[in-house]
Amino acid sequence: MTKYKIGIIGATGYTGSELVRILTNHPDVEITMITSESRAGDLFSDVHPYLQGIADDVLVSLDQIDDYELDLVFLALPHGVSMDIVRRFHDRSFKIIDLSGDFRLSSQKVYEEWYKMDHIYPEGFEKAIFGCPELYAAKIKDAHLIANPGCFPTSAILGLAPLLHANLIESDRIIIDSKTGVTGAGIKAKNVNLYSNVNDNFKAYGLKHHRHTIEIQEIMDKISGERTLVQFTPHLLPVDRGILTTIYARPTRILEESELHELYSAFYAHAPFVRLRKQEPAIKDVRGTNYCDLYTTYDQRTNMVIVISVIDNLIKGAAGQAVHNMNIMLGLDETQGLKLIPLNP
Amino acid sequence: MTKYKIGIIGATGYTGSELVRILTNHPDVEITMITSESRAGDLFSDVHPYLQGIADDVLVSLDQIDDYELDLVFLALPHGVSMDIVRRFHDRSFKIIDLSGDFRLSSQKVYEEWYKMDHIYPEGFEKAIFGCPELYAAKIKDAHLIANPGCFPTSAILGLAPLLHANLIESDRIIIDSKTGVTGAGIKAKNVNLYSNVNDNFKAYGLKHHRHTIEIQEIMDKISGERTLVQFTPHLLPVDRGILTTIYARPTRILEESELHELYSAFYAHAPFVRLRKQEPAIKDVRGTNYCDLYTTYDQRTNMVIVISVIDNLIKGAAGQAVHNMNIMLGLDETQGLKLIPLNP
Amino acid sequence: MTKYKIGIIGATGYTGSELVRILTNHPDVEITMITSESRAGDLFSDVHPYLQGIADDVLVSLDQIDDYELDLVFLALPHGVSMDIVRRFHDRSFKIIDLSGDFRLSSQKVYEEWYKMDHIYPEGFEKAIFGCPELYAAKIKDAHLIANPGCFPTSAILGLAPLLHANLIESDRIIIDSKTGVTGAGIKAKNVNLYSNVNDNFKAYGLKHHRHTIEIQEIMDKISGERTLVQFTPHLLPVDRGILTTIYARPTRILEESELHELYSAFYAHAPFVRLRKQEPAIKDVRGTNYCDLYTTYDQRTNMVIVISVIDNLIKGAAGQAVHNMNIMLGLDETQGLKLIPLNP
Amino acid sequence: MTKYKIGIIGATGYTGSELVRILTNHPDVEITMITSESRAGDLFSDVHPYLQGIADDVLVSLDQIDDYELDLVFLALPHGVSMDIVRRFHDRSFKIIDLSGDFRLSSQKVYEEWYKMDHIYPEGFEKAIFGCPELYAAKIKDAHLIANPGCFPTSAILGLAPLLHANLIESDRIIIDSKTGVTGAGIKAKNVNLYSNVNDNFKAYGLKHHRHTIEIQEIMDKISGERTLVQFTPHLLPVDRGILTTIYARPTRILEESELHELYSAFYAHAPFVRLRKQEPAIKDVRGTNYCDLYTTYDQRTNMVIVISVIDNLIKGAAGQAVHNMNIMLGLDETQGLKLIPLNP
Repeated sequence: MTKYKIGIIGATGYTGSELVRILTNHPDVEITMITSESRAGDLFSDVHPYLQGIADDVLVSLDQIDDYELDLVFLALPHGVSMDIVRRFHDRSFKIIDLSGDFRLSSQKVYEEWYKMDHIYPEGFEKAIFGCPELYAAKIKDAHLIANPGCFPTSAILGLAPLLHANLIESDRIIIDSKTGVTGAGIKAKNVNLYSNVNDNFKAYGLKHHRHTIEIQEIMDKISGERTLVQFTPHLLPVDRGILTTIYARPTRILEESELHELYSAFYAHAPFVRLRKQEPAIKDVRGTNYCDLYTTYDQRTNMVIVISVIDNLIKGAAGQAVHNMNIMLGLDETQGLKLIPLNP
Repeated sequence: MTKYKIGIIGATGYTGSELVRILTNHPDVEITMITSESRAGDLFSDVHPYLQGIADDVLVSLDQIDDYELDLVFLALPHGVSMDIVRRFHDRSFKIIDLSGDFRLSSQKVYEEWYKMDHIYPEGFEKAIFGCPELYAAKIKDAHLIANPGCFPTSAILGLAPLLHANLIESDRIIIDSKTGVTGAGIKAKNVNLYSNVNDNFKAYGLKHHRHTIEIQEIMDKISGERTLVQFTPHLLPVDRGILTTIYARPTRILEESELHELYSAFYAHAPFVRLRKQEPAIKDVRGTNYCDLYTTYDQRTNMVIVISVIDNLIKGAAGQAVHNMNIMLGLDETQGLKLIPLNP
Repeated sequence: MTKYKIGIIGATGYTGSELVRILTNHPDVEITMITSESRAGDLFSDVHPYLQGIADDVLVSLDQIDDYELDLVFLALPHGVSMDIVRRFHDRSFKIIDLSGDFRLSSQKVYEEWYKMDHIYPEGFEKAIFGCPELYAAKIKDAHLIANPGCFPTSAILGLAPLLHANLIESDRIIIDSKTGVTGAGIKAKNVNLYSNVNDNFKAYGLKHHRHTIEIQEIMDKISGERTLVQFTPHLLPVDRGILTTIYARPTRILEESELHELYSAFYAHAPFVRLRKQEPAIKDVRGTNYCDLYTTYDQRTNMVIVISVIDNLIKGAAGQAVHNMNIMLGLDETQGLKLIPLNP
Repeated sequence: MTKYKIGIIGATGYTGSELVRILTNHPDVEITMITSESRAGDLFSDVHPYLQGIADDVLVSLDQIDDYELDLVFLALPHGVSMDIVRRFHDRSFKIIDLSGDFRLSSQKVYEEWYKMDHIYPEGFEKAIFGCPELYAAKIKDAHLIANPGCFPTSAILGLAPLLHANLIESDRIIIDSKTGVTGAGIKAKNVNLYSNVNDNFKAYGLKHHRHTIEIQEIMDKISGERTLVQFTPHLLPVDRGILTTIYARPTRILEESELHELYSAFYAHAPFVRLRKQEPAIKDVRGTNYCDLYTTYDQRTNMVIVISVIDNLIKGAAGQAVHNMNIMLGLDETQGLKLIPLNP
């Protein structure tokens, strides 16, 4: 079988290196082009030396893209940069999966309010499909442009979708308390990811105004058909990768614990990457994999539902979910290349 | 000046070693007796080798207590053990500060429901004063028996007290999402504090049934004069020490951000160990100290108050707060021996 | 093709779970039996919950072994236990790879001197082949019993073999300073692997008497044909997995840096899991893989050779090397199932 | 008593904040000036927010130095910057303790060879006293300019001094294998101290050419009266603070273990900050303190001496040793302000 030809735009960050890690062992595709403007001419393994002997591809400039035949391209770029690339290449034959936040929201207006920057390609909001395979597989199959979900939104949406879909919780007062590993802050050295500021430490950040708040809330609106209100608070964990999200919601009526479990089992019956756990999951339980592990419980004393949702932010929250989308778009088995087993410990 | 004579019952745990660390540099007291049943005859620095040359006291059995003249005794023991010691010594002349959970709740009935064990000295519930100096300094001054607050309750109560005291929040739906360092699980090796189960990892535990839930809730009831309902969820951080508690509460009326700050400033005007922070505090900001750092904010979009509360669980959440109580009980300056500066990084 | 049938004796430790992780994705074998005496009847994923949905095999007692047809069996057991199993099953048709230290040394006498315990199956020393594929592939191919090398010895031997083989260093004064992750101490909770004893900490242990000293030295003797003398000092790193070994040796004559590189390139020309690195490797560069990364340099000023050797102790230092041996014994491609890519970060 | 007036030049780094932490609780001195060119006008606690309420001094520019009466000044600056300040102020009445490497070596020639930069104040090499109180207390007492020792040299020199002083080891082949916490790389965010490059990781760096090699070697020469040759290899630990140095040396004659202990006991009989340990010390055993913990042993089998030396790199390896020097220079008790107790865990 001829392999599909894949391009990766952006090589220096974690999403780029995770895409390469996953696609290298994917049987149905081959990486034919990796671009980097700052490191063109170097090897991919010069940028990520641990991949010496595994991914020694020569990096090229995006300007050389016409030299390549491509079926699909991943954009592993910061928000604000992606929109320009999408504008430039949206009418090419290759499909695009954008891992940035540039096309995840509903409109230019909402984007500019929460991202505090101008959007130069507002047409993209109509074209882009929100790439959450557990919710939108049919649309993803036919999409030309995918907005790959953010890491926090992935954990929160998968944790809440069954409840919202069944309209079982008060939608205007959902508490989402998330804790993320440091790789969520990117690969560039800065105060926030300086070792001694993170190690043996813990703090909240981005209270009230984190951009993922609106991304979560807009998808919640769609799932529930109601206007939701989300209080989202991220915290920074002294770990490399992983997100654990603790969700608190009040049911609209008295529940049974078993009812909750049946609801989630039914909703995720055909979702190969969602594991419903018997005990509270830990982030290392999914490290290095595309799993989202969920645990749900109901507190009779307080009449509250608690959901714990755990993912690897770089995989299910970025590169793995992107490959999942790619599999669906290319008509492949959705688990192809993604049968990753947790590295634990 | 003659120094006050202090005994420490229980030498092998973290609260014991932290008490010794703090009291060693305290100008007005001297440690005259440290007991350990399992290590009697050994030096304190045999049990905690990093204290070689600093605390080489010979450990004795509790049975030798009559050989010592004592003004005050700390019980650094597990719950279930403390109650027996208090029963045995409650009518001695020395004062007692119990660092366990045995006398923090309102009654035998509540204790047995949440601790799932019998209480053999229910008379103690009447006698014990809940040793939170920011709330109950006057009572502590005259107390003979102090129930030193739990670590999670300390962080939660100090974070919520001003709001509850002013009856400014809906008291029946308070979300308390706490994250603690591993020392909270004690010094004995077990699966929960095995390095590779904790490092680069994170998880929730004790959902719905953690004993500190009721300790928090009963004090909330007292402060607010209302029946409160608390949803408390602890999580285990890959750090040695520190608790960060994120609190979500809905105000009973529309607030102003500035109003919130004035409320807290007034409430804690005379509390030397509460620092009101301009930014979100991190747990390392208080490491090794008796501070509780608080950050409060109001989200107009969602009409929610968020409070971040940070302590060192072994100090403000245990040994430091106990020494604070001791200072008050002995009529000393309350900050004596507690002018500790954060070790950061 | 019919798959080879594999048994794993011992399920609760890290080597057991790593064997399962690797073999699950191996195309040519199937795990047909996993035994555990303490957990027989439970699922493998009850013992290692992160493998829920991946490895839900029912654990059986070793007494049921006759119910299974087996081509090869791994012993993932502590030393002292393995020798008994080998004695019991050494004449069965299935091949045995023993991951313990019970058959790595040259004789009962040496074993009893360094392990301070009796050896009940001394005949095994003759039969066992030391399973270092880079040195003994031909012998491994025909072996019935493999003594899988220790983790420290693997890193040290691969680092020194080219120099010793060429008789280029003074063999009686080799300094091997090793640093290991905590999983080397096993999965059982004890003081040495208690989180707060390891986190943000570092120490040496086992000075002068660590058992791996003699394992290294005996292999060094064989490679060099001389009597070597090894000073081996292990240290405990606050990391889960990984060993970095720093080796100091004096050349027997003045060297050129380039000579050193050519020596290693030639020696490891056909070793798919040894990577010769241009810069000092870090332990995360090989995490989750079967690689041994080597860096060599010569200091003209002091006339010393320095070698840095890095492995994942659970994979190249245990389960991965064992599967490598299995591949050779079963006549498979030696990299089958072992094309693992580092998880970094 | 009037307190001595102290200035600190350089406020943004770790040595600056550690000096403030120590001096704040020092009974005989007061900090009267802290300078920062980049942050002049801000509070010290704006730069180090965890010191809010503890050190709210306004930072000033060095140009304002004449507004202050000063007895002693600490230079908490990078090498290359200090030399300029010393040149400018060397004839003022205040004493100077320079924490950089600018005046630790023997001459301009050696400096320029190892630091690869020009030295603009070579006269300083004559004037500066190497501030190791255990070796040079008498000279320090009368010094006007102190070159405060580097962190690695402190751990290595204290570990080897008794052996060298007694000429008991071969001086031309000393192996010094050091492992340091991340704060040794400074407070500025860069790749080397990026969290995910350090966490769960470990590597060697600066092989053969690290500047501390020559600093160690020159002091060894002086102590032994011989020409020494030092192989020094630093490694980067995933910990905030602490250095553990493992030293290997061959004795010039057969030794007894007890002889070694007597040698060290005698040599350090009057050194309040050197603790001779019965077991291998860990870096957390000295965290937050001015201790250097030493462990020595002799291996009969190999005829080698092994020394383990442990310090807190920011205290004994920088700010604490500087305050120790200050105490001696000002005629104070040498332990004043330095009775720090380890924070462990």
